[in-house]
Amino acid sequence: MEFGSYLTGFVDGEGCFSVSFNLRSRFSTGIEVRPSFSVSQKKYSLDVLKRIQDYFHCGGIRYCSNDGTYKFEVRTLSDLTQKVIPHFKMYPLQTAKRFDFEKFEQICQMMKQNVHLNKKALASIIEIAYRMNLAGTRRNSKEKLLRLLTR
Amino acid sequence: MEFGSYLTGFVDGEGCFSVSFNLRSRFSTGIEVRPSFSVSQKKYSLDVLKRIQDYFHCGGIRYCSNDGTYKFEVRTLSDLTQKVIPHFKMYPLQTAKRFDFEKFEQICQMMKQNVHLNKKALASIIEIAYRMNLAGTRRNSKEKLLRLLTR
Repeated sequence: MEFGSYLTGFVDGEGCFSVSFNLRSRFSTGIEVRPSFSVSQKKYSLDVLKRIQDYFHCGGIRYCSNDGTYKFEVRTLSDLTQKVIPHFKMYPLQTAKRFDFEKFEQICQMMKQNVHLNKKALASIIEIAYRMNLAGTRRNSKEKLLRLLTR
Repeated sequence: MEFGSYLTGFVDGEGCFSVSFNLRSRFSTGIEVRPSFSVSQKKYSLDVLKRIQDYFHCGGIRYCSNDGTYKFEVRTLSDLTQKVIPHFKMYPLQTAKRFDFEKFEQICQMMKQNVHLNKKALASIIEIAYRMNLAGTRRNSKEKLLRLLTR
């Protein structure tokens, strides 16, 4: 079995690419952008998360007490752009999750160029992010975040 | 990308091996055994189910109105023993789902030898099946099925 292909299949089923936003008064824009790639599993499948962590040579595994699962997660921008994103360029996702991945990649590349420190560019990052994972829940509405940027 | 490895990864995330039981008065045992391998996806990822169907050269895809998903499913015993099970022997599952697969394989092999037409052997199939997919729901309790066999 080829682990790279297996991994993409597993992520197509269980993985999540997301970009969340936190309000941070010490930030010049007032908003922190947090991209995250994660995969969750129950305890008895923890081994596969460790293999994914070994494969990517980055990320952490933590217990989520709210749903009793373990989550492998990569949040560091350089790990995302240098390790995670290249994997999914080489082994492309086959489900509609690839559309989330494309937006995720776009946002990470913008952040690599530091454009998220500019309010106007950050507004477009927010617009892109809120078209991802439409079934998910958000702490702050898009309108609230965009309003903060025009103050 | 190698599709066989991808597929095992996807099934590790999204697939289901199950064995259900229906009460059938016209059966000598009174109970029909129905093994099933299935993978569900939302409409916008229907393509990947079609690719899985092409890969296995068997099974059907149907719409499930209760949750709005599409389900690729293989129920024919010969397709399960000759096409589905050999795939997962060659490309082994990596999560705890492999324990469900092992029980599923054991039951399909027993059925291939027609032992499920014998009440005592059917009782052991029921015992094995009820140790699979522990989070799932069952129409009939194990005790009810086993009681039927001792009448």
